[in-house]
Amino acid sequence: MIDQTQLPFQEKIYKTDNYTDSCKAIKNMLVRGAGSIGVAGAFAMMQAAMTAPAETYKDYIVKAKNEIANARPTAADLSFAVERVFQKALVSPDEAIREANLIADENAQAGKNIGIYGNALIPDNAGILTHCNAGPLAIVEYGSALAPIIKAWQCGKNIKVYVDETRPRNQGAKLTAWELQKYGVPHVIIADNAAGLLMKQGKIALVITGADRIAANGDTANKIGTYEKAVVAKECNIPFYVAAPDATFDKHCASGDDIVIEERHADELLYMEGPDENGIMRRIRIANPASDAYNPAFDITPAKYIKAFIGSHGVYETIEEYYAAREKNGLKTFKK
Amino acid sequence: MIDQTQLPFQEKIYKTDNYTDSCKAIKNMLVRGAGSIGVAGAFAMMQAAMTAPAETYKDYIVKAKNEIANARPTAADLSFAVERVFQKALVSPDEAIREANLIADENAQAGKNIGIYGNALIPDNAGILTHCNAGPLAIVEYGSALAPIIKAWQCGKNIKVYVDETRPRNQGAKLTAWELQKYGVPHVIIADNAAGLLMKQGKIALVITGADRIAANGDTANKIGTYEKAVVAKECNIPFYVAAPDATFDKHCASGDDIVIEERHADELLYMEGPDENGIMRRIRIANPASDAYNPAFDITPAKYIKAFIGSHGVYETIEEYYAAREKNGLKTFKK
Repeated sequence: MIDQTQLPFQEKIYKTDNYTDSCKAIKNMLVRGAGSIGVAGAFAMMQAAMTAPAETYKDYIVKAKNEIANARPTAADLSFAVERVFQKALVSPDEAIREANLIADENAQAGKNIGIYGNALIPDNAGILTHCNAGPLAIVEYGSALAPIIKAWQCGKNIKVYVDETRPRNQGAKLTAWELQKYGVPHVIIADNAAGLLMKQGKIALVITGADRIAANGDTANKIGTYEKAVVAKECNIPFYVAAPDATFDKHCASGDDIVIEERHADELLYMEGPDENGIMRRIRIANPASDAYNPAFDITPAKYIKAFIGSHGVYETIEEYYAAREKNGLKTFKK
Repeated sequence: MIDQTQLPFQEKIYKTDNYTDSCKAIKNMLVRGAGSIGVAGAFAMMQAAMTAPAETYKDYIVKAKNEIANARPTAADLSFAVERVFQKALVSPDEAIREANLIADENAQAGKNIGIYGNALIPDNAGILTHCNAGPLAIVEYGSALAPIIKAWQCGKNIKVYVDETRPRNQGAKLTAWELQKYGVPHVIIADNAAGLLMKQGKIALVITGADRIAANGDTANKIGTYEKAVVAKECNIPFYVAAPDATFDKHCASGDDIVIEERHADELLYMEGPDENGIMRRIRIANPASDAYNPAFDITPAKYIKAFIGSHGVYETIEEYYAAREKNGLKTFKK
């Protein structure tokens, strides 16, 4: 896996063949992004099955399953993927290998499909706003929010992406910009504060973001700031799209009111880390030394601000349409 | 003057008795904020009159006037204040001294009045959102947006200020937070992205910002991001107030469409400066090295999003009310 903690300043590949190290990599956020965490967990579980001593096989993989799933306890994709591989590991290590690879393929296929469906919504010569990071790093190979954008560019559309910096962790300026550069997509980083002006000036044709969780009524939890962009987009009559694979749609969560907003450490806002002019990593204070900060990590965008959901099997103008299609055709095969 | 380029990490007083150095201080932004720049320019012009050689007095002060006014050519307050002191300097240096002190007093009085009128709009136990810096550093002694807040606190109201970090230059996190700390006002820094969530959660009772220029129809230019906050405030039924002295109301500018948006250097967004753990100032890269940024410095908030203007002579729900009061009573004496 690429070590995401070193991006965009260094591109280091982290390799390991034992599940304990894979587990640490998940815990220490060398890998991040819903889909990618799930895939990393699947391969970690597979490694456990492959290296388990024959005489204590079952005990060993049970212990491993718990360790891996708890590396990031709130990541829904992780526990889901680990459980799937664990069930197959109970049969044989070979079955576990097959299942882990299947999960990775499904992940890539979901991103690919989101790209195809979402691309149809992107006109030529479009300015596109995106917030935070929902690209190939987050969801294996294609991403969610970035999949339609990359697809549109590869189809020859003349597009320009406005990348929200995404304070406080700068995933936009650091990761999304890095990914777009890799794919050669024209882009420019903006302060989160500038998105409103650009929308009002008519420079933005559409907004696409990913999602951390989509409630049963369509309310969508995503990186802090998403809600503001959605409100302003609606005010400016600009379509606001949420792109996400099926795993992100959570039928057991009734509405946005049921989603707990994670509050992260104030230091994320008060300090920044990056290389100085000699390439040496430095951590600096960027706020009044005697002041404190409040740092909620996510917000909820009510369904009414979302023009459509871009899923891996189609585009849905309402959450009801999404669930109707899912109901009718089954999770893996339904198509709009 | 306090050297604002060193804040909030160091509090250094910069002293000079010659206009050339005062001029440099204005140019190099040791002093910033509309009102404060005007006052600094007034004192620089006064210094020129005081140090001019008798035999070349007029030539000397004409040259000085041009130098000072051009230190920050787009600052309306600066050329206005310098011209006022220059006219008096034509009479005598003593007249120039009186006029410069009068301008400083007027500035302080305007802030004091804004504080009194604005305080009436702040309920007890209010959470207050502010964006950028419009405090005592920007407008001598009291400020515009911060004047009502400081007044409310001094009157014993239990308030809490949510300070937008204000990317990319972090004037909120650096200057507003520092000022509120000096006055002992309870406050917390938030990412600009978090303002929407807090408004939606009901934690914000009102929003107050300053302004860089208010057009004849009430459209208001202010620091980038102000527009987004105003749109979301309206969506959440939260009053959005603009506090400004008379000098900020520009009758010769018909609407927001006539205000040119200053675009600043991309590096403001791509790099940050601050002290490391040893107190040594460092400049670090905080974005993908191969990506560029687009950095508009201001945006326009259309008048319809503004609940009221807090002026130095009253509170006005519409720009027409403001100008009617000004027309009726004259610039210096009118009162609502």
